[in-house]
Amino acid sequence: MSLAPLDAGFYFRARRRLRARAAQAGLDGLLLLRAPNLAYATGLFLSANERPMGVWLPVEGDPILMLPDLERENAEASGLGDLRFYEEFPGEVPAVLWMLGQIGAKRIAIDALDASLLDAARARLTALDLTDHAMRARQIKEPEEIALTVEAAKFADLFLARLHATAGDIIAGGGTEADLMADTMGHARSALFETHKRAFAGTPMGITASVHSGPRAALPHGAVLERTPRAGETLIAGIGASLGGYHAESGVTLIVGEMSAEQRTIMAAMAACNDAAIAACGAHETCMSANNAAMDALRAAGLGEAIRHRIGHAMGLEGHEAPWLAPGDATRIETNMVFSNEPGVYRPGRDGYRTINTMIVRENGVDIPSRFQADTPIDARTIPI
Amino acid sequence: MSLAPLDAGFYFRARRRLRARAAQAGLDGLLLLRAPNLAYATGLFLSANERPMGVWLPVEGDPILMLPDLERENAEASGLGDLRFYEEFPGEVPAVLWMLGQIGAKRIAIDALDASLLDAARARLTALDLTDHAMRARQIKEPEEIALTVEAAKFADLFLARLHATAGDIIAGGGTEADLMADTMGHARSALFETHKRAFAGTPMGITASVHSGPRAALPHGAVLERTPRAGETLIAGIGASLGGYHAESGVTLIVGEMSAEQRTIMAAMAACNDAAIAACGAHETCMSANNAAMDALRAAGLGEAIRHRIGHAMGLEGHEAPWLAPGDATRIETNMVFSNEPGVYRPGRDGYRTINTMIVRENGVDIPSRFQADTPIDARTIPI
Repeated sequence: MSLAPLDAGFYFRARRRLRARAAQAGLDGLLLLRAPNLAYATGLFLSANERPMGVWLPVEGDPILMLPDLERENAEASGLGDLRFYEEFPGEVPAVLWMLGQIGAKRIAIDALDASLLDAARARLTALDLTDHAMRARQIKEPEEIALTVEAAKFADLFLARLHATAGDIIAGGGTEADLMADTMGHARSALFETHKRAFAGTPMGITASVHSGPRAALPHGAVLERTPRAGETLIAGIGASLGGYHAESGVTLIVGEMSAEQRTIMAAMAACNDAAIAACGAHETCMSANNAAMDALRAAGLGEAIRHRIGHAMGLEGHEAPWLAPGDATRIETNMVFSNEPGVYRPGRDGYRTINTMIVRENGVDIPSRFQADTPIDARTIPI
Repeated sequence: MSLAPLDAGFYFRARRRLRARAAQAGLDGLLLLRAPNLAYATGLFLSANERPMGVWLPVEGDPILMLPDLERENAEASGLGDLRFYEEFPGEVPAVLWMLGQIGAKRIAIDALDASLLDAARARLTALDLTDHAMRARQIKEPEEIALTVEAAKFADLFLARLHATAGDIIAGGGTEADLMADTMGHARSALFETHKRAFAGTPMGITASVHSGPRAALPHGAVLERTPRAGETLIAGIGASLGGYHAESGVTLIVGEMSAEQRTIMAAMAACNDAAIAACGAHETCMSANNAAMDALRAAGLGEAIRHRIGHAMGLEGHEAPWLAPGDATRIETNMVFSNEPGVYRPGRDGYRTINTMIVRENGVDIPSRFQADTPIDARTIPI
């Protein structure tokens, strides 16, 4: 079967789901202002900027798409019938308040609102619900959305496979992190675009990656530098890929040269952490409980001090989205949620480790569309130099 | 002289300016949450994500930098003494409310706040000002900031010069918009990185561009496609370049093959529009009045129906930032503000035109660091094929 962008039927069903949520919450409808929510409801992937863009989804009646005038032709591509345009930003009236006037309804939810507009919005409404209902709906993925994530994961894996195959020669030749990035990014991006660019024109597609090594691998958010990885160091590669607007991730830690016994022990603890997250998600625990179960595996290995971040986050139209496998998120994990699984061990001044899988929660268990770790046993995660 | 990133002295003076603004507004201090405001006050260019990051600038006493734990090493690089960290997002308590507890002061301004937190924030404070005071300060650029913008503009121009020089051969060979992008982007980006990467490591630097042609040039926000421009069409190129975090723009409309008399008339009207904006900014009119003066030049040429967007926006640490040369912005234009100047003519189904200059407002008049238009008379804006 050949993959294609989500079609008009998908977006029609998405709007039906969203309107049902509005009805259930006792509202007249939902005003969606966040770009990924707008994409979910309309199929429009517009470049977000300071000009507000919104779609009104009433429980009864037709949707209204409200955009700045310069998006007129893009709006017409949505297939929606009721299009309204404001002249420019900032304009005499804040665009969101103009939208409330266009809508007319008095009991609404807005997915995101600047606090400076709250009093004015309340004055125009009888009930204002600031729940992001669209994000709640998006948490449970449809089969068509999951198919895009599964395909995107292949290209994140492709980056890692290329890195694993070519890093030894590049490093032996004095190549830097930036050189490793250039080689592998070119390879993976070309493959993604050659395979899918024609069918997916007009939808977001791309690869983002970071490759960093040595003591700086202990920084969870390190920059890629002109630095040649050295024998004995860890090299962390974290890859995100997107197709048709849907994200997947895959990542691994490789050892430059031979793996020490200590490095192997840490890699095994990371695998146990990964497996604990999978088990907790597959058992449909809460998000915070899954995070705890995963961190327990690192703590049991004596690595509690080296924890610097949660185990993961959901992904879909956003690379990072709710719910969060993290402290403070009591959301129950459900079938067809999609999460990252990112065990991380960071020892400042020494080294750092992180692996990433993509998890698709099923009724009983979890599917893992990112395959690099499964296909590359820990002992094979070295870069011969 | 060799350019360098803004130094600790710049950020010290920036904080002093911001604290003076807080004092003037009768506040205890400013809480800055927006990434460009944080960069302006600290020199930290952190990758923005869902984890809130903030800096508290009190009128009296020391600043407090408040970040997620995984930014610990980056925070230490700021040189600020009082660093506080929260565990993770989302956490049991919203990070912004945790920050209010760390701060303790009761009369504060917050530059941007989600409406869902407003009631809780008000309950913890006696005065909450939602003015973006830091953006107000950033509107007036310091000489060091302007020097970075001037240098960035050279690389936007370099993209255009390369496009002008090579587009004819590429199009004659059947090349597409995407091919034009790849050639020119590679050229300009390499030059930028070779010239500045070493001195500016760790600060944002880059080039963004769009090249689109034919009827789709009538879409102000068109995508770059696999389409070969044809004889007689307009080709719009809009380039943004950034160095040390500071943005500049340059852009032009080129005619593929020979320029028709009608095309030349429109290009002349665009130049008049550009000149009217320069005159209004140089005379320190209000932003909305400068927009009006520029649009009058298009209307006088019978192109009023073809206007689709404002004449421009400020730029600096953000590619688009306040104030806006647009309807509804009554800000008085002042010395050392930096704006784009973007006349646009869009005739759906037919063609589109846009040029871009960067304007630096001086005491009497305007400097134009983007030089491509000045160096390329209208009659030379063709691509021989």
